[in-house]
Amino acid sequence: MTTLGITGGRVLRPGMTVERADVLVDREAGEIVDVGSEVGADADERLDASEAVVLPGLVNAHTHVAMTLLRGYADDKPLDAWLREDVWPAEAAMGPEDVRSGARLGALEMIRSGTTGFVDMYFEVPEVAAAVDESGLRARLGHGVVTVGKEENEAREDAAESVAIAEELDGAAGGRVRTAFMPHSLTTVSDEILAEFLPEAREAGVPVHFHANETRAEVEPFAERGERPLTHARERGLLDPADFLAHGVHLDGEEIDHLAETGAGVVHCPASNMKLASGTAPVQRLLDAGVAVGLGTDGAASNNDLDMLGEVRDAALLGKLGADDASAVAAPDAVRMATAGSAAVAGLPGGRVAPGAAADLAVVSLDRAHLTPVHDPVSHLAYAARGGDVRHTVCDGRVLMRDREVLTLDADAVRATAQERAAALVDRAA
Amino acid sequence: MTTLGITGGRVLRPGMTVERADVLVDREAGEIVDVGSEVGADADERLDASEAVVLPGLVNAHTHVAMTLLRGYADDKPLDAWLREDVWPAEAAMGPEDVRSGARLGALEMIRSGTTGFVDMYFEVPEVAAAVDESGLRARLGHGVVTVGKEENEAREDAAESVAIAEELDGAAGGRVRTAFMPHSLTTVSDEILAEFLPEAREAGVPVHFHANETRAEVEPFAERGERPLTHARERGLLDPADFLAHGVHLDGEEIDHLAETGAGVVHCPASNMKLASGTAPVQRLLDAGVAVGLGTDGAASNNDLDMLGEVRDAALLGKLGADDASAVAAPDAVRMATAGSAAVAGLPGGRVAPGAAADLAVVSLDRAHLTPVHDPVSHLAYAARGGDVRHTVCDGRVLMRDREVLTLDADAVRATAQERAAALVDRAA
Repeated sequence: MTTLGITGGRVLRPGMTVERADVLVDREAGEIVDVGSEVGADADERLDASEAVVLPGLVNAHTHVAMTLLRGYADDKPLDAWLREDVWPAEAAMGPEDVRSGARLGALEMIRSGTTGFVDMYFEVPEVAAAVDESGLRARLGHGVVTVGKEENEAREDAAESVAIAEELDGAAGGRVRTAFMPHSLTTVSDEILAEFLPEAREAGVPVHFHANETRAEVEPFAERGERPLTHARERGLLDPADFLAHGVHLDGEEIDHLAETGAGVVHCPASNMKLASGTAPVQRLLDAGVAVGLGTDGAASNNDLDMLGEVRDAALLGKLGADDASAVAAPDAVRMATAGSAAVAGLPGGRVAPGAAADLAVVSLDRAHLTPVHDPVSHLAYAARGGDVRHTVCDGRVLMRDREVLTLDADAVRATAQERAAALVDRAA
Repeated sequence: MTTLGITGGRVLRPGMTVERADVLVDREAGEIVDVGSEVGADADERLDASEAVVLPGLVNAHTHVAMTLLRGYADDKPLDAWLREDVWPAEAAMGPEDVRSGARLGALEMIRSGTTGFVDMYFEVPEVAAAVDESGLRARLGHGVVTVGKEENEAREDAAESVAIAEELDGAAGGRVRTAFMPHSLTTVSDEILAEFLPEAREAGVPVHFHANETRAEVEPFAERGERPLTHARERGLLDPADFLAHGVHLDGEEIDHLAETGAGVVHCPASNMKLASGTAPVQRLLDAGVAVGLGTDGAASNNDLDMLGEVRDAALLGKLGADDASAVAAPDAVRMATAGSAAVAGLPGGRVAPGAAADLAVVSLDRAHLTPVHDPVSHLAYAARGGDVRHTVCDGRVLMRDREVLTLDADAVRATAQERAAALVDRAA
């Protein structure tokens, strides 16, 4: 084997403790082979981690990555008006080349902020998969199905595409691309379509990812029938152990029990929930109930970045406010949510720095004014570090960024193309 | 005059519009003399602002800067336990050299994140003033008075020191240091002490800055007597037009009226209010009522950084969640709060890029993946830019940071000393 050594730093271990150690990686296997004192000294390739912390690569468990093209295009509007007046018209004008450009831009931003894996729900999914392939990241991808407002034929085609894409792309990019069947939400996909296509997804062996309980308006139609969305979802065959939903803002005790009992996961998206005034997810209650919780940025248009370290801070701060308890969603829990939590929920490798785990790693510099002094590196990861503090990013044993230089994408070209395409896109949409 | 030209960029104007323009500065006067096309081309010294936005230097209107030494020392605890078990014992062990070191570290962090002015409530204030002087920043400083739990003599000495410091230091550092009388809060300073020393502060012509309505527990003793804290404050002679309070989380309609009627300002501290689970300030209601609102980070121990661009994002996001309205605290309002708003509330120069205004400026790079594409630079300043994106910082006509190199402080030495002093401090406190 040829090896990569990450040397001279401190390492965040699965128990959320930090110790001085090197990390040794088998590059071909894409696996961590050792963590310990000086184990990286004789590696074939080395990354300096002095005055830094080596942590599992961050996993963004819910996003719409090509929406980076719409970053800052429309802000400060309620979800409904924002979707109808701005987002949907722009997305209707988006072609495959736009999706590719936006996905490349998002991949560049993710690598620069220490994210190594992500979950994406969008359209033109082969373009997203191509960006994953060239960038060196890993991802779980799917085609989002929407049936409301569509003719039956069109709705069935959309759902069939989601299953077909999940079957075709699973295992692409040398196994770094995994897939899911992705009905958009419980209110935007009809029960009939779900009943027809869910068995096909189960047959294909892919999990199901969907939005649920994001806004009060989304829960109301169920409440009017004396039902809860996740009870409905469970009865309809969703909430298998590998399934996971985004948001889970408005959940009652029974729904939290459904999640804990089934093992289905929740992806918390605190910044998006704040920006769209959706509400505050009961994160500490979910953790206390033993629900699998990951963290996601949602699309860049409702955030407006893909910085998972920023999202960790948002989760820790909002979790306290929401629980009315300053000890809720403590720093180690918030950091775990963005690493092991997201990886488990998304069913992606990575999430821990330990022998045998995937070599998906981020190295965060601590030699900065805003990270001085260092009383507790985990506190800094939760509250004070940002994407710009990431020094190196490694995925599947390959160095994607070294000393802030991204090696797999041409940053200037990606940015220039994205700027051009975004400007043309909003011109077409207007 | 010798001139500084900031050239080739876009400029954020007081109306929160952005236009392509240069900024020309009179270095000796520390003033902006012109804003317009090519006006900086022949300046004696130039700063490149291509692919960047020139904005007013950010003003952190409420902090305790030396608490940078306690960054990450104790997290995830309620305000009361955090103060009693961690912060107060550590502060009791802090000497003048620690305050100097922490203030230098904070100044370094502020310069690196585009902050040019701040308001500080602490002790050993001459040490903070010295750090302001050497760093080139400007500030309004005061000694925080606490009388609860103290003998009468000691309490009176503390209050007398706050007035004396305000008198002595006002105008220091070539006028860049201004001062205030700073009774810590309405519940930690007795009415008797306030009645005795407030007239002295008025005589000295300095404003009053204090914490108010931060937590529910702080409001309760007033509510039990059928009173509201700010009604009490107004009756006690506080809330002059130049006075300003930090937090204002738990305010009723009558108190908002007091603020609007008197012109006294409020400093919103969203991150600290979330981290300590204090609650959500009614920011949009304050803005609608015409109250002067600024923005502050509070101390780094409850944030955990001094990044005002991050705080702008926190204010915009939390403002929406708190108002249950995604259109509340819109991007331009949040950016204005951190610039013109904070400057007005704190009574410091700066806050706008216009001829005649103080040359306090930050230049924020837009040539980054997470700031691409640029549909609207104001959106990026509110939602996606962070302190690490600041390219140059100018205060009072002097370049404090050029291309991310801080010119007034030795960054490595400041960090090394702070790390050493912080470690020794918590050893002594434990």
